Amino acid sequence: MSPDAQTPPTPQPPPTPTVWRRGASFQEMWRDLLPVGRSPGGGYRRHAWTSADAECRAWFREQAEARGLTYEVDRNGNQWAWLGDEEAGDAVVTGSHLDSVPDGGAFDGPLGVVSAFAALDELHERGTRPVRPLAVVNFCDEEGARFGPACVGSRLATGALTAEQARALRDADGVTLPEAMERAGHDPDAIGADPRRLARVGAFVELHVEQGRFLAEAPGDHPVGVASAIWPHGRWRFDFHGEANHAGTTRLEDRRDPMLTYANTVLAARKKARLAGALATFGKVAVEPNGVNAIASLVRGWLDSRAPDEETLAAVVAEVERAAVERGARDGVRVTVVRESFAPVVEFDHALRDRLAARLGGAPVLPTGAGHDAGVLSAVVPTAMLHVRNPTGVSHSPAETATEDDCAAGVRALVAVLEDLACR
Amino acid sequence: MSPDAQTPPTPQPPPTPTVWRRGASFQEMWRDLLPVGRSPGGGYRRHAWTSADAECRAWFREQAEARGLTYEVDRNGNQWAWLGDEEAGDAVVTGSHLDSVPDGGAFDGPLGVVSAFAALDELHERGTRPVRPLAVVNFCDEEGARFGPACVGSRLATGALTAEQARALRDADGVTLPEAMERAGHDPDAIGADPRRLARVGAFVELHVEQGRFLAEAPGDHPVGVASAIWPHGRWRFDFHGEANHAGTTRLEDRRDPMLTYANTVLAARKKARLAGALATFGKVAVEPNGVNAIASLVRGWLDSRAPDEETLAAVVAEVERAAVERGARDGVRVTVVRESFAPVVEFDHALRDRLAARLGGAPVLPTGAGHDAGVLSAVVPTAMLHVRNPTGVSHSPAETATEDDCAAGVRALVAVLEDLACR
Repeated sequence: MSPDAQTPPTPQPPPTPTVWRRGASFQEMWRDLLPVGRSPGGGYRRHAWTSADAECRAWFREQAEARGLTYEVDRNGNQWAWLGDEEAGDAVVTGSHLDSVPDGGAFDGPLGVVSAFAALDELHERGTRPVRPLAVVNFCDEEGARFGPACVGSRLATGALTAEQARALRDADGVTLPEAMERAGHDPDAIGADPRRLARVGAFVELHVEQGRFLAEAPGDHPVGVASAIWPHGRWRFDFHGEANHAGTTRLEDRRDPMLTYANTVLAARKKARLAGALATFGKVAVEPNGVNAIASLVRGWLDSRAPDEETLAAVVAEVERAAVERGARDGVRVTVVRESFAPVVEFDHALRDRLAARLGGAPVLPTGAGHDAGVLSAVVPTAMLHVRNPTGVSHSPAETATEDDCAAGVRALVAVLEDLACR
Repeated sequence: MSPDAQTPPTPQPPPTPTVWRRGASFQEMWRDLLPVGRSPGGGYRRHAWTSADAECRAWFREQAEARGLTYEVDRNGNQWAWLGDEEAGDAVVTGSHLDSVPDGGAFDGPLGVVSAFAALDELHERGTRPVRPLAVVNFCDEEGARFGPACVGSRLATGALTAEQARALRDADGVTLPEAMERAGHDPDAIGADPRRLARVGAFVELHVEQGRFLAEAPGDHPVGVASAIWPHGRWRFDFHGEANHAGTTRLEDRRDPMLTYANTVLAARKKARLAGALATFGKVAVEPNGVNAIASLVRGWLDSRAPDEETLAAVVAEVERAAVERGARDGVRVTVVRESFAPVVEFDHALRDRLAARLGGAPVLPTGAGHDAGVLSAVVPTAMLHVRNPTGVSHSPAETATEDDCAAGVRALVAVLEDLACR
């Protein structure tokens, strides 16, 4: 056939690498990761491009190489471990992230990466031969704990975050993202959209510990569920501008105390969210001058809000803002609101979602309020998520958990999905 | 007379030093101090034993030496400038402090020190010869901005703060007070109660910018007032213990969000204080983990409260605590309260107060909600305070101010008081 022929070449299954072998067991991998970046209080601080992150990344590379997989780091720092020809296209990719929120738990992220390697081992054990390339991925800086925006690795790859925007990010110490990457040994010059690499991916499946109690409370016994959608969500910074003054000498009626307006807004946000069936949280605050005997001049509070649909979300945020401005007028406090980030609703690929749910014998389908790399990738790749039951429902805390049995069920579900998608 | 004689020696007026001379004018002194420790935002950060503080202290020493006064630093780091025999006893001392709160104003503290030197110059100009020793003092670490407790220099001297307690103090970077003193060139080994030095003081008069609008709003035109009392006041740390969780996935009804309890307590404190004619302020907050998408596990808020009498103060704080605990029960949040400091009511020496008010032609007598070195010293020395009118009423902020005319009136008042007490 001449190179000019219009007929596309018949797809060939990639050669299974002769060196493909089993790696460490789920339990061994879990044990290896467990101490990395754990603070004395038990929470994890695996923030992007720190030494704890570097240890996680070194671990990923070891897992890839121990299994004879082809290891690569893409231009944005995401790590890939390929079984089969990574250039062949139509690959089935699974994985998650290894970084954490401040004082996060052990499961959010790592469960998806460890389960992915364990699922590959199980396929190997069964003698299953993939007919599509398979890869395990670790997306970097999913939590945004250090530089602010979440899903930096995946959003850079899809172009949802531009290289220019990423270069302007700074951590609390003023270190820029490029500086942090460089110090960690990653060349920051090449960051940016990576359409060629994403075009190789035919399907992405992220396994994640559930961040609520949907599965724990669902009738029947369901260790694993399939995600339907990610709620639209965003972050708004509320600045309450008052006047610094002496807490011991300023009459109440002479005050312009922004702490009062902030406090009222916190309570208003909860109420508005409850009435709308949405979520609203103030979890981060910064106060100036933050002195015990000083009335604050500025209170800055960040609202995280999410809702089943974008209209509801917009309405809740508008009502919280209105309540803040109204109370501010009484307190002599000026309120300004800036939307720092927004993610529209993500509907996962329906065909893929239904195929997974069917393959898993009618697993429950559940929505999620949390953003994920899977949500980012769904804009350009058919994407699905598996959730593993979390009995506490707690997340972003050392209290998040999943039983050993449920983790094993998660791996079995991922094996079934990979067999279905890549091996037949 | 033999050294063993029981009859005390007849007090002799101290010799006026032949070298006593005028120093820089009020305006020149003010201009010299103005840039020291000023942040780009215009607020002052002259925290104890920092380089900005060292500059202030060097300035004090220069002023003392330029006037031919005897300069000394006491064991606790307080600076003294003596006119006459510092050992003679029954001295009249005036002064204040040079350190600041975070982003404080230019007047709180320095006005009293600069006015003291200017008043001495005016006495010199008039050819007035003091018959009692006179001193200007700069008490160190009045604001407690770095190590927490206020009035460290004066409280160490009176024994209200023990050396052991002071040695345990640490700043936000973990530097202990002794380490900070040592780095600034002051030997910390000798800190502690200094009764011999305080026994030399027959009266202490502190001039201070008013930290409210009593004088500005008083009928008539009163640039200067005399303090009657310092309200009892204290600091209470409220810890709200909830549960960290994911802001995007945790149902409202599953949350134990301490930010809600904190917010409700802020509003309750304001209300309880208003009803009782007291003051209550939450101006400092610390949140863990303080992430935008994390429900807080811990919110720590500091309550500053003051009232005309101790019973009212205790009742207000008890009511705020009760409101916090009640709301905490609804939110699933445990509340603990620790009293971090407490200062009982200070009634300034009535004879001295009345003498000053009369000498100043019936100056208004006003209470203050703020603690001062004068309040600390009043436990062991007859003590009085002069307040200079502050048209904004603002304090602990760059917006605190006094007009040039009112500052001059303050110096004249201090001259009149020193003449009255020390020169006749």
